[in-house]
Amino acid sequence: MTKRVLNVPGIAYGGDYNPEQWPEEVWAEDVRLMGEAGVTMVSVGIFSWALLEPAEGVYDFSRMDKILDLLHAGGIAADLATPTAAPPAWFFRKHPEALPVDKDGRRLSYGSRQTFCPSSPAYREAALRIAGALGERYADHPAVVMWHVHNEYGCHNAECYCDESAAAFRRWLRTRYADDLAALNHAWGTTFWSQWYYDWDEIIPPRATGAVPNPTHQLDWRRFCSDELLSLYEAERDVLRKAAPSLPATTNFMVMYNFDALDYWRWAPELDVVSNDHYLRSTDPESEIDIALSGDLMRSLAGGPWLLMEHSTGAVNWQPVNRAKNAGELRRNALAHVARGADGIAYFQWRAAKAGAEQWHSAMLPHAGTDSQIWRDVVQLGADLKALAEVRGSTGAAEVAIVWDWDARWALELPSQPSEMVRHLDLVRSWYEPLWRSGVAVDFVRPDADLSSYRLVLAPSLYLVDDASTANLTAFAERGGTLAVGFHSGMVDENCHVRLGGYPGAFREALGVRTDELFPLLPGEKVGLGGDATATLWSERVHLEGAEAVASYTDGPLAGVPAVTRNSHGTGTTWYVSTRPDPDTLAALLDRMRAEAGVRPVRVTPEGVEAVLRRGENADYLFLINHGDRDAEVEVTADATDLLAGKPVEGGTVTVRAGHVVVAREPRG
Amino acid sequence: MTKRVLNVPGIAYGGDYNPEQWPEEVWAEDVRLMGEAGVTMVSVGIFSWALLEPAEGVYDFSRMDKILDLLHAGGIAADLATPTAAPPAWFFRKHPEALPVDKDGRRLSYGSRQTFCPSSPAYREAALRIAGALGERYADHPAVVMWHVHNEYGCHNAECYCDESAAAFRRWLRTRYADDLAALNHAWGTTFWSQWYYDWDEIIPPRATGAVPNPTHQLDWRRFCSDELLSLYEAERDVLRKAAPSLPATTNFMVMYNFDALDYWRWAPELDVVSNDHYLRSTDPESEIDIALSGDLMRSLAGGPWLLMEHSTGAVNWQPVNRAKNAGELRRNALAHVARGADGIAYFQWRAAKAGAEQWHSAMLPHAGTDSQIWRDVVQLGADLKALAEVRGSTGAAEVAIVWDWDARWALELPSQPSEMVRHLDLVRSWYEPLWRSGVAVDFVRPDADLSSYRLVLAPSLYLVDDASTANLTAFAERGGTLAVGFHSGMVDENCHVRLGGYPGAFREALGVRTDELFPLLPGEKVGLGGDATATLWSERVHLEGAEAVASYTDGPLAGVPAVTRNSHGTGTTWYVSTRPDPDTLAALLDRMRAEAGVRPVRVTPEGVEAVLRRGENADYLFLINHGDRDAEVEVTADATDLLAGKPVEGGTVTVRAGHVVVAREPRG
Amino acid sequence: MTKRVLNVPGIAYGGDYNPEQWPEEVWAEDVRLMGEAGVTMVSVGIFSWALLEPAEGVYDFSRMDKILDLLHAGGIAADLATPTAAPPAWFFRKHPEALPVDKDGRRLSYGSRQTFCPSSPAYREAALRIAGALGERYADHPAVVMWHVHNEYGCHNAECYCDESAAAFRRWLRTRYADDLAALNHAWGTTFWSQWYYDWDEIIPPRATGAVPNPTHQLDWRRFCSDELLSLYEAERDVLRKAAPSLPATTNFMVMYNFDALDYWRWAPELDVVSNDHYLRSTDPESEIDIALSGDLMRSLAGGPWLLMEHSTGAVNWQPVNRAKNAGELRRNALAHVARGADGIAYFQWRAAKAGAEQWHSAMLPHAGTDSQIWRDVVQLGADLKALAEVRGSTGAAEVAIVWDWDARWALELPSQPSEMVRHLDLVRSWYEPLWRSGVAVDFVRPDADLSSYRLVLAPSLYLVDDASTANLTAFAERGGTLAVGFHSGMVDENCHVRLGGYPGAFREALGVRTDELFPLLPGEKVGLGGDATATLWSERVHLEGAEAVASYTDGPLAGVPAVTRNSHGTGTTWYVSTRPDPDTLAALLDRMRAEAGVRPVRVTPEGVEAVLRRGENADYLFLINHGDRDAEVEVTADATDLLAGKPVEGGTVTVRAGHVVVAREPRG
Repeated sequence: MTKRVLNVPGIAYGGDYNPEQWPEEVWAEDVRLMGEAGVTMVSVGIFSWALLEPAEGVYDFSRMDKILDLLHAGGIAADLATPTAAPPAWFFRKHPEALPVDKDGRRLSYGSRQTFCPSSPAYREAALRIAGALGERYADHPAVVMWHVHNEYGCHNAECYCDESAAAFRRWLRTRYADDLAALNHAWGTTFWSQWYYDWDEIIPPRATGAVPNPTHQLDWRRFCSDELLSLYEAERDVLRKAAPSLPATTNFMVMYNFDALDYWRWAPELDVVSNDHYLRSTDPESEIDIALSGDLMRSLAGGPWLLMEHSTGAVNWQPVNRAKNAGELRRNALAHVARGADGIAYFQWRAAKAGAEQWHSAMLPHAGTDSQIWRDVVQLGADLKALAEVRGSTGAAEVAIVWDWDARWALELPSQPSEMVRHLDLVRSWYEPLWRSGVAVDFVRPDADLSSYRLVLAPSLYLVDDASTANLTAFAERGGTLAVGFHSGMVDENCHVRLGGYPGAFREALGVRTDELFPLLPGEKVGLGGDATATLWSERVHLEGAEAVASYTDGPLAGVPAVTRNSHGTGTTWYVSTRPDPDTLAALLDRMRAEAGVRPVRVTPEGVEAVLRRGENADYLFLINHGDRDAEVEVTADATDLLAGKPVEGGTVTVRAGHVVVAREPRG
Repeated sequence: MTKRVLNVPGIAYGGDYNPEQWPEEVWAEDVRLMGEAGVTMVSVGIFSWALLEPAEGVYDFSRMDKILDLLHAGGIAADLATPTAAPPAWFFRKHPEALPVDKDGRRLSYGSRQTFCPSSPAYREAALRIAGALGERYADHPAVVMWHVHNEYGCHNAECYCDESAAAFRRWLRTRYADDLAALNHAWGTTFWSQWYYDWDEIIPPRATGAVPNPTHQLDWRRFCSDELLSLYEAERDVLRKAAPSLPATTNFMVMYNFDALDYWRWAPELDVVSNDHYLRSTDPESEIDIALSGDLMRSLAGGPWLLMEHSTGAVNWQPVNRAKNAGELRRNALAHVARGADGIAYFQWRAAKAGAEQWHSAMLPHAGTDSQIWRDVVQLGADLKALAEVRGSTGAAEVAIVWDWDARWALELPSQPSEMVRHLDLVRSWYEPLWRSGVAVDFVRPDADLSSYRLVLAPSLYLVDDASTANLTAFAERGGTLAVGFHSGMVDENCHVRLGGYPGAFREALGVRTDELFPLLPGEKVGLGGDATATLWSERVHLEGAEAVASYTDGPLAGVPAVTRNSHGTGTTWYVSTRPDPDTLAALLDRMRAEAGVRPVRVTPEGVEAVLRRGENADYLFLINHGDRDAEVEVTADATDLLAGKPVEGGTVTVRAGHVVVAREPRG
Repeated sequence: MTKRVLNVPGIAYGGDYNPEQWPEEVWAEDVRLMGEAGVTMVSVGIFSWALLEPAEGVYDFSRMDKILDLLHAGGIAADLATPTAAPPAWFFRKHPEALPVDKDGRRLSYGSRQTFCPSSPAYREAALRIAGALGERYADHPAVVMWHVHNEYGCHNAECYCDESAAAFRRWLRTRYADDLAALNHAWGTTFWSQWYYDWDEIIPPRATGAVPNPTHQLDWRRFCSDELLSLYEAERDVLRKAAPSLPATTNFMVMYNFDALDYWRWAPELDVVSNDHYLRSTDPESEIDIALSGDLMRSLAGGPWLLMEHSTGAVNWQPVNRAKNAGELRRNALAHVARGADGIAYFQWRAAKAGAEQWHSAMLPHAGTDSQIWRDVVQLGADLKALAEVRGSTGAAEVAIVWDWDARWALELPSQPSEMVRHLDLVRSWYEPLWRSGVAVDFVRPDADLSSYRLVLAPSLYLVDDASTANLTAFAERGGTLAVGFHSGMVDENCHVRLGGYPGAFREALGVRTDELFPLLPGEKVGLGGDATATLWSERVHLEGAEAVASYTDGPLAGVPAVTRNSHGTGTTWYVSTRPDPDTLAALLDRMRAEAGVRPVRVTPEGVEAVLRRGENADYLFLINHGDRDAEVEVTADATDLLAGKPVEGGTVTVRAGHVVVAREPRG
């Protein structure tokens, strides 16, 4: 599929723009201040359904006409949204059955946003109608450069358990199992607990039941829920594409720590431009790592540059306590996103709301107005992004890949596991962190991805894996690569069936080990790994079947049992890490793997200075972000240019001031 | 409105009396023991509906007749309750729609108490019917001295989300917004999240929805819920007043730490006698401060003396662990209430129940009978209250006022605030505590109250304030008073709209400061304020615009920024406290404010001895309550009398024994 | 009632066998491996309903025929289950009203197991139909030696609040109260909170309501729920007995820490063979004590030997973190059950599942196959049990009895108690632990049991007790026994009515004490009892009325008040323990009671070595279980035989190796 391209120059800059919240006299000031800040594109109409369609099939485009004209006159491009994330009250009064039902059978009410059933025919019809009307009216408006389809699919309504959803689930299952009910019964293991289905109509969503529901039933449900929303996206996109064949379409993903409802590997190919919403968690003392990880995952999903569609200039309003950003953090955050491949930076929202549910969410133009630190930072960032225009289109290049898979994440985090403390993202981040600290570039890959460009492939947490992906990963090692696998990986196949004969099932042979029993560790429990090294969370009775022990358990019931192993497999090497080592120990292990695999960091920097490389056609762009409180010196090529300062670097060394960022253009060849 | 007066001499003394729980032979003993304890008034009939009206419209007054006659014969007055807090089972079988529905759409069942929908027409009709029948029958009974309308309005059913409640909410909104739907849309800010209403019938209660509901929607809902119950009170009161035009009516408030459903500023004027229920929290190590604060608020609501309608002689039964009272605590508690203006002391309940949901709640006559410490304390208290008869009608006199507002409390504690750890009562108590420790008299005032009698007005937490109240408060300072404002005050107007241009919105000018960004502190986070002083919970980037910095942040992202400021405003002074200082620091700040404003304590006493003054017509009554474990000497006037001891004080000094109370009459020149 | 006897030799050995989960080719291997492990009996068909009855009234016995024939051919007996714990999906599609409804009115869905309404007529009809069909077909099958009725009654559906349950509850109440509604009103104390019922139809289950529901209503509800499931058991049993008059019937109890739904004193007499499911709690550092306590309770319920129907070879899958067993623990656990009277040891399940909700539950044959520690332990255990064949039928003999009562437990743990931290099982275990550590044999008894064979009777927690049981217990002391009562006992009668006049009501006179007020302690609060002794959880103001103080409170509000008392009553002795002493102090108290009562341990052993005795016809069987990490020497009789080693003990002393078990046959004179 050819992707349509976003026609905005350089690094796009802007935010969600909700002028409906303000009297018209404010709009002109908005456009003037956008100019002052260097804003180039804003997203409009995200929550405008109630105003655009005051009654079914009756449209009022007058306000939107004015807004788009004003923006265009001010030289600001518009990313025009379909407002389908928040249907109006009149819609729900007419279609109460389109309100979602939770696991407990409780039907929710309207009154906030995103409270509709994804499988509702009435909703789908209404959504495509308003999308069609917008497409028709604004396809040729000169301000409009992209369609912003919906908003944050699945943010509040990823799952609906109503009867219409049940019917849609059955249709999806019939497709998945090719109308073969016996195949479903086999896949779900319904001989257990008397769950055998004799009729498709017997199947319902995994609603609240007395005991633990069937795991494969739950896993298929999660797959269905992701696909169901995807089909809504595709339907809206197709309506818009018909009206405006050359305009690109996007929808904003939520690749951040706590959101896991959608399988973005399946979504990304359907978008012309891949974009993301990312917010910091106030309780994360190193949220720069979350930005980097999310950014690497976004770049991997997009297969190149992407857009940051929402983040915040300061505190958000939906966490228990909402931390403001520290001095320079707004700028560091934004440029870190660019470093990881963002070709546009946008915020929720342009002007801080005075009313409504998000009145305490920060914005580009705060309640305090332009005499504020945030506004000054916003203006500064506009200038920075302008200086980085040439970075657009450049992308990353990594020798290390981390395997990431939503199926595996969902399956792992189902109930009735050996330990509910084992969480996919925690494990991935624990392996990602030492790489980040060392300045090593990382891609994320699907388990069935082409791995030929990597030296080191890590699977920190791959509980579920099918046979083809198993073969793909082990073949990578066989052909000379280094593959490292974390505990509780390879355990089940695509139907959540345990792979028999010993753990870690799928990878046993390639790793040269065999575990006969799992020993999860209790909260607070710790085991020694020799010297000062310790581990938590998990342990297992590993037997060597070809591998060598790199570290062993030194106390507890498994004293003397191998904990970390290394094996030769084909012409390559495989590692198994059967526990969660303390950070220093894990870092040392990854250092050794890297060293052996010949993986080098992007640049060696003083502690606290993040180094990221974007590769352009003729030059590399080296991003140096100083998270520490001391100025740092970093070597660059002799002909490098400091883009933000707008001048050549003297003497092959740049000073990255504490809390600041340097972007050095290093010409290639 | 003329208030009807309670015709019981001195300080009334008694409790809830539920003789239905016992065979008739126990009743005579009850009255005899009431006499022994000095009981003068009991509340009867609170939960008698099922026995009084065994079937719709069929009454059985035989038992109540006997009870009232017995009481009268024993010289005990009756506070006769309408039993409408607990409709009988037969009522709900006939009117299942009168059962309340919670936010999640779950309809509750009968089987405890106070489980009805406040907006139910069937309930209202039934309640007025039984109230009318009681009024008619007992208007002239000589035992009856007051109507006890209902019981603890809103204790378990302050909110009902059913369709009848929805209709009532819409009627209330039409009144509030003068039938102007656009005004409502403006007030609620419904342009955001596509919430615009085109028809009144689209509006529903803030039922469970996918994301955060609209804040103004929620605030109006809380206002409605309070008003809806108030209208039930008024309707019952009017029925009773018609039957017995001269009898006063009361209903028992619940001014205590955790109950916030009703705006008692709106309720108090509708009561002839204002009364309160107050219980201690087992986990509060200084519940004497809670008694004092609640008592001051009650006196302020009543505009003078009030009644304590319920408290406990010992442990209650509805907390996780229910602490008994320590030696002397029953007496200290009761006399502390009197000190704060109570002209009557009553307990739940007279005789400890052997069955039912409150069987483990303490009472005046415990399970153990009269050979018990509680009974001895109850008898002693009867004598004490008799000795204090002349205190009746005297009231307090304070130079310090604390602004208290339910609208502000509700709005502050809605979801999606900068920090959910900021709680109205916590802040008010943190400012009240040092004043209590210093023996400073305090009134509570509405934000729009006449402040001319005060020297120092404190607004520790006034998130929401309208323009008129803003003007009232700042004018107080302008005319020479001292006004101190706590952080996150003045932020929004009566519609919950943020006041733009900088924080703390409404008070910015009068305080001479301007904050451009808020920095809430995480749990456990602490910032320095210079020296040993620290602060928690909140901080902000304050800019001086006329004020001087009294203390500044010394570390963290705001190092060097003013934290506490002082400003001259008109002929007065204003203070801003932008954080929560540690207790010693806050006490020192309040000491300085008091000193500058010329506010003096009631009496200087040794640590641990609470001093409270009630001013009578010709004398002051000085209450000295020793919460410590050492006897203490306190100076009184030369002509003072120790009322509890019943003799003159010798030498101008009284000894307040550890754990004991002295009430000194000090004649006024 | 004559009990039918299980016709399997020696100590039965096996597990749940679910061959439906596997292709037929696996079945032969199963039977072969069962032989290898010494398995003698397996439970089949527990969750086979959907396969046995593919549509209403249509049966498919082909698979079960083959399984039973295979087992028989392999010499394995079958405990054939009725599959009624998990009705098929087709049943619920036809009878949605048979799905259970929770307290909140939420109807659950099928999709796991045990999700049916116990009072549903449709369910009962279907359950008896399939039970009848199985009975008819397999009554004479040579493999079948016992009926396994249902599975874990009440595990997930002990309570259903639907209208059919409400009707059944009313029928049950009419029986309990002999159709006298006034008697119910009296028992429940419905004069309080206006709860009087005028019509049986007004009574509903204690569904979610606004405030605390009536305690007696709740208590009767729990009694009803237990009886309702019992009536289902009885109905199935009767159908099976009709088909096969000589086959014994069992159902697996769940006597373990957290399950309290069924009054097994009422259930046990209805079973031919009493059996239990027992699992360890990962967070219990001394789960051997839980095994012992549960085993003693099982033996007491059975009045002799019983079967362990389910436990686990390793980790389970339904706790937050599921701990594996340590080296030797599988064997120690199993033999500890035998020591407490188990004549059979069975596991859930034979072969670890690869799919379904219990895929991560350990089994006899693990995922790893026979090359695994678990399999080796399972084979070893088979040999051990074979060596213990002669132990079958022997039973315990205790001089100490602990009073255990489900009514008292339920009543104690209702809401609105003085302290919700007081839990029945915690208290029983706290008294049981020191006895266990001392090797003292203990029976559990009903409060109305014949106590004549005991020297010491303990009632650590007997909140509710009726008059007859009170008399039974105090008469035991009167006639020379030693009775020790824990705090908050004897407080209420069978209707939950407080016994008036002072605490601990029923036992006041026999104990020679009288408490006038309770002083529950807050979490973390501690009081001194003299010297190093401390106590937590509870205290009270005890007055001596004949008793002597053995220990007194030394600080806090009750300093100087007796805490532990001792009294002469008739020719015996009574003790009152008014608090929860620290473990050492409680152990010392129990030592003194035992010494005075002349109770001796089974055998004096080094610390960490558990000693248990089963008395056979001609010999005692001494079980010595070494939980410690050092070998230990224990004296045995000169003619003792080490059964597991299969040889005589030399020199009157056996060595019990660390982590190991010795069973010594000691012939009796």
